[in-house]
Amino acid sequence: MNLHHLLRPKVVAIVGASEKLGFGRDVSQNMLACDLGDNLYFVNPNREQVLGKKCYKSISDIGRDIDLVIICTPMFTVNNILEEAAGCGCKGAVIFASGYGEAGEEGKLAQEELKNLATKHGIAVCGPNCAGFINNVDNIHGFGLPVSARQQKGNIGLVAQSGQVCSLLVSVPHLKFSYAISSGNNAVVGIEDYLEFLVEDEATEVIAVYLEGVKYPEKFARVLAQAAKKRKPIIALKVGASEKARQTTTAHTGSLAGSDAAFGALFKKFGVVRVHDMEELINACVVMSTLKKKPPVNSVAILNISGGEAAISADMAQLQGVRLAEFSPETLQKLQDMLPGYATPNNPLDMTATLVLNHDKYRATLRTVMADPDVGMLVIGLNPPELVAEIDKPVDYGLARSVIEVNNEGSKPIVLMPGMSRKRDPELREFYYAGSVPIVDSPMYGLSVIKKYAEFSLYDPSARTLEVAVGKDGQSGEKVSTETLSEHGSKAILKEHGISVPEEYVAQSEAEALKAAKAIGYPLVLKIDSPDIPHKTDIGGVKLGIDNDVALKNAFNEIMDNAKRHKPDARVNGVLV
Amino acid sequence: MNLHHLLRPKVVAIVGASEKLGFGRDVSQNMLACDLGDNLYFVNPNREQVLGKKCYKSISDIGRDIDLVIICTPMFTVNNILEEAAGCGCKGAVIFASGYGEAGEEGKLAQEELKNLATKHGIAVCGPNCAGFINNVDNIHGFGLPVSARQQKGNIGLVAQSGQVCSLLVSVPHLKFSYAISSGNNAVVGIEDYLEFLVEDEATEVIAVYLEGVKYPEKFARVLAQAAKKRKPIIALKVGASEKARQTTTAHTGSLAGSDAAFGALFKKFGVVRVHDMEELINACVVMSTLKKKPPVNSVAILNISGGEAAISADMAQLQGVRLAEFSPETLQKLQDMLPGYATPNNPLDMTATLVLNHDKYRATLRTVMADPDVGMLVIGLNPPELVAEIDKPVDYGLARSVIEVNNEGSKPIVLMPGMSRKRDPELREFYYAGSVPIVDSPMYGLSVIKKYAEFSLYDPSARTLEVAVGKDGQSGEKVSTETLSEHGSKAILKEHGISVPEEYVAQSEAEALKAAKAIGYPLVLKIDSPDIPHKTDIGGVKLGIDNDVALKNAFNEIMDNAKRHKPDARVNGVLV
Repeated sequence: MNLHHLLRPKVVAIVGASEKLGFGRDVSQNMLACDLGDNLYFVNPNREQVLGKKCYKSISDIGRDIDLVIICTPMFTVNNILEEAAGCGCKGAVIFASGYGEAGEEGKLAQEELKNLATKHGIAVCGPNCAGFINNVDNIHGFGLPVSARQQKGNIGLVAQSGQVCSLLVSVPHLKFSYAISSGNNAVVGIEDYLEFLVEDEATEVIAVYLEGVKYPEKFARVLAQAAKKRKPIIALKVGASEKARQTTTAHTGSLAGSDAAFGALFKKFGVVRVHDMEELINACVVMSTLKKKPPVNSVAILNISGGEAAISADMAQLQGVRLAEFSPETLQKLQDMLPGYATPNNPLDMTATLVLNHDKYRATLRTVMADPDVGMLVIGLNPPELVAEIDKPVDYGLARSVIEVNNEGSKPIVLMPGMSRKRDPELREFYYAGSVPIVDSPMYGLSVIKKYAEFSLYDPSARTLEVAVGKDGQSGEKVSTETLSEHGSKAILKEHGISVPEEYVAQSEAEALKAAKAIGYPLVLKIDSPDIPHKTDIGGVKLGIDNDVALKNAFNEIMDNAKRHKPDARVNGVLV
Repeated sequence: MNLHHLLRPKVVAIVGASEKLGFGRDVSQNMLACDLGDNLYFVNPNREQVLGKKCYKSISDIGRDIDLVIICTPMFTVNNILEEAAGCGCKGAVIFASGYGEAGEEGKLAQEELKNLATKHGIAVCGPNCAGFINNVDNIHGFGLPVSARQQKGNIGLVAQSGQVCSLLVSVPHLKFSYAISSGNNAVVGIEDYLEFLVEDEATEVIAVYLEGVKYPEKFARVLAQAAKKRKPIIALKVGASEKARQTTTAHTGSLAGSDAAFGALFKKFGVVRVHDMEELINACVVMSTLKKKPPVNSVAILNISGGEAAISADMAQLQGVRLAEFSPETLQKLQDMLPGYATPNNPLDMTATLVLNHDKYRATLRTVMADPDVGMLVIGLNPPELVAEIDKPVDYGLARSVIEVNNEGSKPIVLMPGMSRKRDPELREFYYAGSVPIVDSPMYGLSVIKKYAEFSLYDPSARTLEVAVGKDGQSGEKVSTETLSEHGSKAILKEHGISVPEEYVAQSEAEALKAAKAIGYPLVLKIDSPDIPHKTDIGGVKLGIDNDVALKNAFNEIMDNAKRHKPDARVNGVLV
């Protein structure tokens, strides 16, 4: 699907431009602050002007073709507006309205209708039930929530299946985006399409995605493979590891969660960096978008000026599975000669606080550690303040210049890792970033993403078969199924891609279940397999800890009974053993 | 040991008061800003005045007895100053100087000498190698690093075996301390003594400790038991889970790490809240110091206005082992009737963003969930901004008033949990805290400490034997041993306290090792047991994965050989099986 009319439009109309609290006001203000000038049009039949800009009665009144229509009006008005926009050559639309796929059966029908209409006219729709998008490459902020004036063009492309998650991430002043897209219900343009756009986009060097589920797993896998071949990192905050989260996401954007294990296997195959909360996503974005070098080995040296921070970092490294380099005897000897008597050379290295004021020795220590052959990355424990006081500038910027100087000379990446998360002086942070030294939040998140950065750097796409079978959902983006991918179904797709998943069978009878048990061995978990029963536990569709043939037979029959009783109309494939 | 002269002095002398960058300047500035008036004296033989205040040539020149001397001068001057202070009735001292126990053999001897001198004169010494203390109860800031003017008296008592950790925690504007103590090397006053002081102190309702190791395990256990009986929470950031951290802490404050598993067992017995980094410590302090109610059951309801945040929270709850309450059919029906059509009642509950503007409905929803019998605590997903804009005050404070109103009516604790960590408007934060509603940083830390709060609330000290055998290190604080507690030694003490630790034996011969293996079963780990070898792996003193008799014999002999070769003078108890 071509997203250029949607995300990089030349001519834009906002229908429902308004001064009243809501999407209509926020997106009008955001777009006025951009550079479209005469190529931006406001439409509102009830107003002459909005925010000082002329309003047209309708899209047709504009008398000119448009690329993108941003629709701020309620659900029941949307289809007519879309028809009218189509008549004016429109090929992109942002629809903020909710009440669609996330809102019960009636909403699902409305979404299907919207989809058919958009497909008929070839309109790429962002939403519905979304917050729109921010394009910092061309400075177009079709976003329905307030956008900070601080937005600066960056190299991170973000797509999020949650307006709130998108909005929170966009508010982080030290994350700089090329694009930030709140994709909403993905009625027309899928998450896979946005990802494909970002993989192809040259301004985007790092991709971040908040993911609840996908509709086109074939295409999704194909896009991940493209990214892997280009060595463009995808950082995925994928929810749905828990049953409760799967229930929530189905209600939320009507997304189809599928099996979390299947996503895990897919991510592993294609080197996708999986993170587990917003902080980890932010830290991964900072590290991936700032570092320019790759670690030669998967190990770190941690250099602190505080013994307490060094100890916390050491424990955290073990917790996160980060290997601390073993310093060579030469390195240890040099450090011993160089550091004050009370610093015992070790990794983490407590350089002691005296080095904060001795920048020559500080640099020399960093260089010594950088030269050690077992060190893959340098992790430097410093705590840039919230605001650098005038009197402290020589110390804070002196240290920064020292770190950057060593970074420029050396061949290994350097990351700044404070002992504790807090706001940092924006100018000082920018100074470090300009020197390709990222600042992570804290040892926990820092070490977690440092490890992931090393793994991504050492991931070798040429060592794997990244070819994926095309055809299932076709080049045109035709879907496999709008149904929930059943657990067995999503795993089957993975197997076609050569991704190993735990052995399992779908049993349609007691006898088949017993046969499967013989093949796999006890203890077993039994789960109902049905695309119509996404919440298995709710209907008694899951049985744990089955360890003999009798228990197996009972569990099989109970699950099938429960399914029949609670969901008589459900299509049941059988019981997953 | 009486710490009142040290921590709550009436008359204080600062020796080495100065205007030059360093402890001498910072502590002088801090103390001038306090209320001691004529009871504060500066001593500096080379200056008439410092920071506008008269300097005396020596302590004796003051012509008056003092309670506390704060010594800012280098190590070699300390003993003479201490002698002179003792002559002026001094019973407390802060010593910033480093070069003691953390600095090799010579330093250890100097520390022993200092200790003997202080003991002879009955002086309670904070340090050496420390940053001093902050007493917000009496407003005395004997702290050698800049203290923010924002320091407000609170109910958290902190003691930290790291000046940097203490200093970072004190800089968090929303943590309010009764006392904050950087204990340094604990040459004279032990971490156990400070803890005892805080357990007994009435202004202190929550105790936080950054812990590298203890010297008097008997007394430590006794103090933990006292706190448990008083139901005063102790939050412990104990480092040393990893071998690297143990190496670092030995070098750092010369502390004795002992076995981390032993600490874990001790914490469990006495209901100590163990945390793993600074953020978790901060979040635990916020929750423990703000909440006034106890959850009736160990479960939570999460109420969001964003589906994305709800999904992330659900996954995080599973990861942290937090049980999400099951809403009753009545609760579900009430929510269904109350919420807009597109909110599907569930836990986490996505109330949808429309409720941000409808505070009546917002409160009604909270009340409905609060009334559900399976709900132990309410966790509310809102994102207070960094600074509340004038135009947003009705919304932000309206929501805050709604939350506090429901909190005041109800019997269950409420915690505010944003989707993402960031700075919060200080006034709005204060407003929530005044209503006994804490704001945690993020779902990960929030849910982790919420679980720990529930566990602490449901911990019943009367159901356990908290009596600990007194005598080993005596009421006078006489130590068991200044040596590193060997792993077997610290576990033996735990066993005396009725704390179960994994079964293990110390074998002094091949035959004994084989006998132990028979009793425990393979696979086994073998470790050298010696108080003189804290870094076992460094000398080849650890062997993993031993799974038969031959491997066991070889491992035993190798370990004993390695110990003899690398540390010929070490006292070796044997090999720990």
